[in-house]
Amino acid sequence: MSGVKQVYLFTEGNAEMKKLLGGKGANLAEMTRLGLPVPPGFTVTTEACVDYYRKGETLWPELEEEVAKALQALEKQTGKTLGGGENPLLLSVRSGAYFSMPGMMDTILNLGLNDKTVEALAKTTGNRPFALDCYRRFLQMYADVVLKIDHYHFERALDEVKKMFKVQPGDQLSEEGWEKVIARFKQIIEDNRQKFPQEPVEQLLNSIKAVFESWNNQRAIVYRRLNNIPDDLGTAVNVQSMVFGNQGEDSATGVAFTRNPSTGEKVLYGELLFNAQGEDIVAGIRTPLPMSALKERMPSIYDQFDNICTKLENHYRDMQDIEFTIEKNRLFILQTRNGKRTAAAAVKIAVDLVEEGICSKEEVLLRVEPSQLVQLLHQRIDTTLALKPLATGLPASPGAALGKVVFDANDAELKSAEGEKVIMVRSDTTPDDIHGIVAAQGVLTSRGGMTSHAAVVARGMGKPCISGCEAIKIDPKAHLFQVGEQVVKEGDIISIDGTTGNVYLGEVPMISPELSPEFQKLLSWADEVRKLQVRANADNPRDARKAREFGAEGIGLCRTEHMFMEQDRLPIVQEMILAETKEERNKCLLRLLPIQQGDFEQLLREMEGYPVTIRLLDPPLHEFLPNLEELLIEVALLKERGDNPSLLKEKEYLLKKVRALNEFNPMLGHRGCRLGLVFPEIYRMQVRAICQAVVALMKEGLDVKPEIMIPLVGHPRELEIMREIVEDEAAKVKKEAQVEFNCPVGTMIELPRACVTAGQIAKHADFFSFGTNDLTQTTFGFSRDDAEGKFLPFYVQEKILPDNPFMVLDREGVGSLITQAVTAGREQKKELKMGICGEHGGEPQSIEFCHQAGLNYVSCSPFRVAIARLAAAQAAINANGDAGQK
Amino acid sequence: MSGVKQVYLFTEGNAEMKKLLGGKGANLAEMTRLGLPVPPGFTVTTEACVDYYRKGETLWPELEEEVAKALQALEKQTGKTLGGGENPLLLSVRSGAYFSMPGMMDTILNLGLNDKTVEALAKTTGNRPFALDCYRRFLQMYADVVLKIDHYHFERALDEVKKMFKVQPGDQLSEEGWEKVIARFKQIIEDNRQKFPQEPVEQLLNSIKAVFESWNNQRAIVYRRLNNIPDDLGTAVNVQSMVFGNQGEDSATGVAFTRNPSTGEKVLYGELLFNAQGEDIVAGIRTPLPMSALKERMPSIYDQFDNICTKLENHYRDMQDIEFTIEKNRLFILQTRNGKRTAAAAVKIAVDLVEEGICSKEEVLLRVEPSQLVQLLHQRIDTTLALKPLATGLPASPGAALGKVVFDANDAELKSAEGEKVIMVRSDTTPDDIHGIVAAQGVLTSRGGMTSHAAVVARGMGKPCISGCEAIKIDPKAHLFQVGEQVVKEGDIISIDGTTGNVYLGEVPMISPELSPEFQKLLSWADEVRKLQVRANADNPRDARKAREFGAEGIGLCRTEHMFMEQDRLPIVQEMILAETKEERNKCLLRLLPIQQGDFEQLLREMEGYPVTIRLLDPPLHEFLPNLEELLIEVALLKERGDNPSLLKEKEYLLKKVRALNEFNPMLGHRGCRLGLVFPEIYRMQVRAICQAVVALMKEGLDVKPEIMIPLVGHPRELEIMREIVEDEAAKVKKEAQVEFNCPVGTMIELPRACVTAGQIAKHADFFSFGTNDLTQTTFGFSRDDAEGKFLPFYVQEKILPDNPFMVLDREGVGSLITQAVTAGREQKKELKMGICGEHGGEPQSIEFCHQAGLNYVSCSPFRVAIARLAAAQAAINANGDAGQK
Repeated sequence: MSGVKQVYLFTEGNAEMKKLLGGKGANLAEMTRLGLPVPPGFTVTTEACVDYYRKGETLWPELEEEVAKALQALEKQTGKTLGGGENPLLLSVRSGAYFSMPGMMDTILNLGLNDKTVEALAKTTGNRPFALDCYRRFLQMYADVVLKIDHYHFERALDEVKKMFKVQPGDQLSEEGWEKVIARFKQIIEDNRQKFPQEPVEQLLNSIKAVFESWNNQRAIVYRRLNNIPDDLGTAVNVQSMVFGNQGEDSATGVAFTRNPSTGEKVLYGELLFNAQGEDIVAGIRTPLPMSALKERMPSIYDQFDNICTKLENHYRDMQDIEFTIEKNRLFILQTRNGKRTAAAAVKIAVDLVEEGICSKEEVLLRVEPSQLVQLLHQRIDTTLALKPLATGLPASPGAALGKVVFDANDAELKSAEGEKVIMVRSDTTPDDIHGIVAAQGVLTSRGGMTSHAAVVARGMGKPCISGCEAIKIDPKAHLFQVGEQVVKEGDIISIDGTTGNVYLGEVPMISPELSPEFQKLLSWADEVRKLQVRANADNPRDARKAREFGAEGIGLCRTEHMFMEQDRLPIVQEMILAETKEERNKCLLRLLPIQQGDFEQLLREMEGYPVTIRLLDPPLHEFLPNLEELLIEVALLKERGDNPSLLKEKEYLLKKVRALNEFNPMLGHRGCRLGLVFPEIYRMQVRAICQAVVALMKEGLDVKPEIMIPLVGHPRELEIMREIVEDEAAKVKKEAQVEFNCPVGTMIELPRACVTAGQIAKHADFFSFGTNDLTQTTFGFSRDDAEGKFLPFYVQEKILPDNPFMVLDREGVGSLITQAVTAGREQKKELKMGICGEHGGEPQSIEFCHQAGLNYVSCSPFRVAIARLAAAQAAINANGDAGQK
Repeated sequence: MSGVKQVYLFTEGNAEMKKLLGGKGANLAEMTRLGLPVPPGFTVTTEACVDYYRKGETLWPELEEEVAKALQALEKQTGKTLGGGENPLLLSVRSGAYFSMPGMMDTILNLGLNDKTVEALAKTTGNRPFALDCYRRFLQMYADVVLKIDHYHFERALDEVKKMFKVQPGDQLSEEGWEKVIARFKQIIEDNRQKFPQEPVEQLLNSIKAVFESWNNQRAIVYRRLNNIPDDLGTAVNVQSMVFGNQGEDSATGVAFTRNPSTGEKVLYGELLFNAQGEDIVAGIRTPLPMSALKERMPSIYDQFDNICTKLENHYRDMQDIEFTIEKNRLFILQTRNGKRTAAAAVKIAVDLVEEGICSKEEVLLRVEPSQLVQLLHQRIDTTLALKPLATGLPASPGAALGKVVFDANDAELKSAEGEKVIMVRSDTTPDDIHGIVAAQGVLTSRGGMTSHAAVVARGMGKPCISGCEAIKIDPKAHLFQVGEQVVKEGDIISIDGTTGNVYLGEVPMISPELSPEFQKLLSWADEVRKLQVRANADNPRDARKAREFGAEGIGLCRTEHMFMEQDRLPIVQEMILAETKEERNKCLLRLLPIQQGDFEQLLREMEGYPVTIRLLDPPLHEFLPNLEELLIEVALLKERGDNPSLLKEKEYLLKKVRALNEFNPMLGHRGCRLGLVFPEIYRMQVRAICQAVVALMKEGLDVKPEIMIPLVGHPRELEIMREIVEDEAAKVKKEAQVEFNCPVGTMIELPRACVTAGQIAKHADFFSFGTNDLTQTTFGFSRDDAEGKFLPFYVQEKILPDNPFMVLDREGVGSLITQAVTAGREQKKELKMGICGEHGGEPQSIEFCHQAGLNYVSCSPFRVAIARLAAAQAAINANGDAGQK
């Protein structure tokens, strides 16, 4: 890499250089290019960071020289000198990766201060306490980030000095106090056998090194894993001249969004603090003011800012998240980026941007993250009920959740792993709490604003969050919080509504979501471009109705076994399984027939005009019988007690039956069409029930479209025989009823053997439906029930696999088999209809694969239909555009 | 098919027309062509039989006309007339399919007799009792075969008449007696509302029809299934002029082999009966004489026959099985075919034919059926011990067996299905007993010769058989047999030695087989042509030695888990699994290390100079722990009793552990390299043990060739990591010992995902070994443990699958995945070594596939190494020759 430029002045870069300069660096350069008031600075490239790791974590002379040159230019631009003169140059040093990783890496402010420059700063600002405060802040940050000294030491020292000078925790010290603090801080550094360099260039180089290293701190690694960001990109380092929002009441610092990130409403939305530094806002220690405070107190600066916002939004064609500082009535823009937003806001902003003529439909369709939509599709608290909240905080991330109270991220993780739903309650959160937010249903904090750490992270994850709920008093040691007299202990259940900010004691009723008009509009645009049909997996009329509401174009998978499990049928099903003769079995089946027919009538009626794919019985029969282990113990105890020989006999008989049906590997056992082949009478009953339902509905004049699907076919002969049986039974019903109707017969493709012999299987099939759950199991040789509880989390964590293949379809393995099957199937039968009905059918990356593989439809759970519609549209747009777009 | 010739005179056909004329018909034509004394006749083709079924089981005018024309020609050739004149033509009507199905279909003799011709026959032969006997035999056969009247009626009638005339069961009746019998027989037919036609052409057409129909009787269907003969070939019908071996003491009938079918010795070997018809020999009612009797009594005919035998053997280039009849001092050859033989005979004859210059090596290599060799590789009775036999019969089929006595084929099947080993003891067997012979370990009969039904069938199946053991008196009703005073009851154990004919009471010691010099020679020829290397699966020095004796060129699979299971290690293994910390686990592993090292030293020492592929631990850990069900019951009972709280606590702890490790589908669970990844310390211990063993043996100057194999790899990254661990540990041992050695690292390919990503996996592998057991399970989605006990027998029986895919490799599915993997693997790494180590490695059809797929080796159980060597040679020869050869 030597010889390649690795340091760029802001005036040398632009927004296109995001990969090299990181998102923040490229935007600072772009804003500079646009003539916005950006404090001058330069960026050390991401490539330099990668080199840093390649070279064994050490800086090298060429880079140091480039930094020195950039510094000279910066001194020229600002008219200030680093480490010297009357007007010392102070710098901020910040990370900035290609993908935004907010708060994950380190920052150092006020760099350039030392025992000499602090006095020069005091002189130019005319505010020695301010200068001393800056110096002690720098000492503390440098010690923390570069020297890795625990910040606890510094906080204790500060508290002690404040006590000594009888100053309240929130208030400022005198010059004498700050001098004392600075002396104490230097002592702490010495006590830790570290050195604070007085030479600012040394400070700078060490800080650059430290930022490089923060790329690989624990938080950053976890964040990248959660967000699928590659580990080898590296971070850029932005070195920028400092401006101060804490130079008095004519100074301020703030964060603003060009539109409301919670609702998407087109209104300047943000927070600021007067006489404060940026970190004060993010830390959530002081509760900030709304933007209206700026309009009131500095109307012309507000207008200037508003203009810049419009300019930036038009330039970036998206809602912006802007950091700004006002230094003595002068506005500086420190950062802009596409703003994070809730799903609701994402949808509204997308639709508005199109209607405002700023963006094209395709552009905004690509911009909404389908998986984020989940939060729009989740429950909210029923506001028609007059519920009395326990307390109210800021509505920081919408949606509702309930769970047991925990006060610690580790507890949240632990309890959640045990299957508990938890709400994490904290005074505020830090990046160290991320795993707790991941594990919890929602977050409640007593401090911090809408842009506090908890709020930002929760919104990103689509989890409900209430921040700044000052009414609650947390006592983490006692494991409880109080609201007035009301005590809420760890383990008590609370409900939170992140849309209103209300906290409720106990469980409150929640209701299901509907689609907003904007959402409907966005989806209708998606429908215009997508090629994949979207169906739903539904086994009952309730789910079918929900699926239709979300826009499903049919049912791709109706699992008939769920009907067998219902309480009124199970005894008959059990009797059928235990039958000794075919006659006995047939008697039970005759009793099941009208019940099944009723099931199908309801379902087909609900889906009138749309295809309904009904899968015949799939699971092994012993799933319908009592549990083997329980029976074993029961029989052992009955024997031991010897007091009920007739019950013992009965249970022993049952045990014998259950044991005979029990399997070593039920997943690979006697199930699917293997049942249908050995017990054709069961499948015949189901086919008859379907056909009789069709006849009954046709007589009512309804247009119903049943499709019969045979599960677990691995050999063409299996399907050939099953098809004969289905057609024979259907023909009988048609003849009896003197009615004609069409009922295609297809098969699940869910075994590797089915994929490699798909050409032969296609001869007997009207359609294929890829069952990617089972196909993933057999292709990998993973039992999902076992793998997800045992080695699969380890596999994903250690990156042996990029994702859990049961969540994201494995393209290399499972996908390759699907592609073989699609090709061979279509070669045999050009118009063969193909779809997918595994859980992958509702997962965006997998849907993209389905589009690329040329399937006709995806089928997913009703609640994911909207996600699938959008993801299918994105797949279609991406397939049309150039490959680099995604 | 109309217009196509469907009836051929023997003078019109030849040996090449086997498909059309059946084996018997083609051979009769060929012998006629060679000028041998064959009674004239004609053949109705197999195609006519197929048409017969197509046309709804009815004859058609064109065929009847062709038969009539052939009859005319036959009358001209013989100078006899069917149904008329002084010299009536009598016919035999026999089945004859493409593949020999001895005794499975029907035969009718003496056709053409009626109330008129019987008297003409009496006149020309000057033997009226003989003519009447022929007539009643024909009546009985016609009634049985054509009219389907139970032969029991006729046997009872004959017995009654014999009693009436006070004639002993074996002796002949007077003319008056026979007339009575004939009248009774006609009455029986009438009583059954059937009609015996006096018109011989009607007799003939009905008989042809009946033979066609016998193609689909139960016996024939079972036989075809057992022998993998297609159901749609049909049988030809051979109509031949009768000759009579029962015309007095100058007449005889017999069966002879050109070489001894038991040992292969080059000597005319056969049996005959004077004054008898052929059926008398096959039926086993009279005990026949050896061929020496013919030499004594008719030396010139013996010489003529001997010449014919030599001529036929040279013509067919194989040992012949010849049926002959002598009618009044005139020799007729009725049939010749390649003789069935024991495996020992097959090997000796093959080698002799090459050494006599009759055949090429390739020719005989193709001729020996590899699976038949199993019987040479099985046990025999230790003859060095002075064991006293209970009785001695004819050594009808070699090999030794022991089991519980059963007297009935159904019992044999039932007991065998329950897991019992049984010996079937019968006075004689008929085709109805086949399922009993299949189920039994061996057969013992009190009647019949070396060519009796029991003997022929048992030899074909490679099962030990003793026939004609007249010392045993069977009382099937009392479920026992007696030898003098000694009573042997049903369920008692006996041992039989089919090589010597000795029957022993109880279990006798048996010894393992060695390879005969001829066998060694044949295998050495196989070694010259085969391309596939043959290795063995062996986990201990004993098996390794056996494998070497059978010619294995290395060990293809050493399963280290078997070492973990041995009694002295299991407690340590359990302690390791139950360990709470890595430290505890490491302590246990340290104790296992020297034991494992010892295992490997022994194995590598035994295989010096040959590669030994060692697979690291594969099965899920809970396989080493106590059974969950037993523990559940134990804990429940301990709780109920409440008298041993400390034991309860201990067991509860164990239960918790076992339950935590227990899996829903252990086949797809935490096993193979998934264990190695999560618990690398276990694999490290194994690698260290292997490497330290290598070092120790190298210090002794031994040349050892270890190969380390990683199980259950599905993703390239798994192998990449495992390989790093293996190489790291190996490097440590090498450094410690200051020794260098080579130890390739490869992987099992036993998951569909491994097959489709084989190109990527190959990057990290020195070799691939296809684990076709697991690969078959995952490709089909069949759990072998469940499938073989549940639906798989049904699948094979109903021909949903052609074979059990765990026995014969599924080429379409599993084979297609293997082919993909071979191609991708070799594209990545041209010289990648590939083999197979599933059970298919010892199965001839699967070995042929391995050859075609381009694998380097097969690995199988030590006892199947010889079979694999031969099968590999056949695959190579077949691949070179034209496709039609096989």
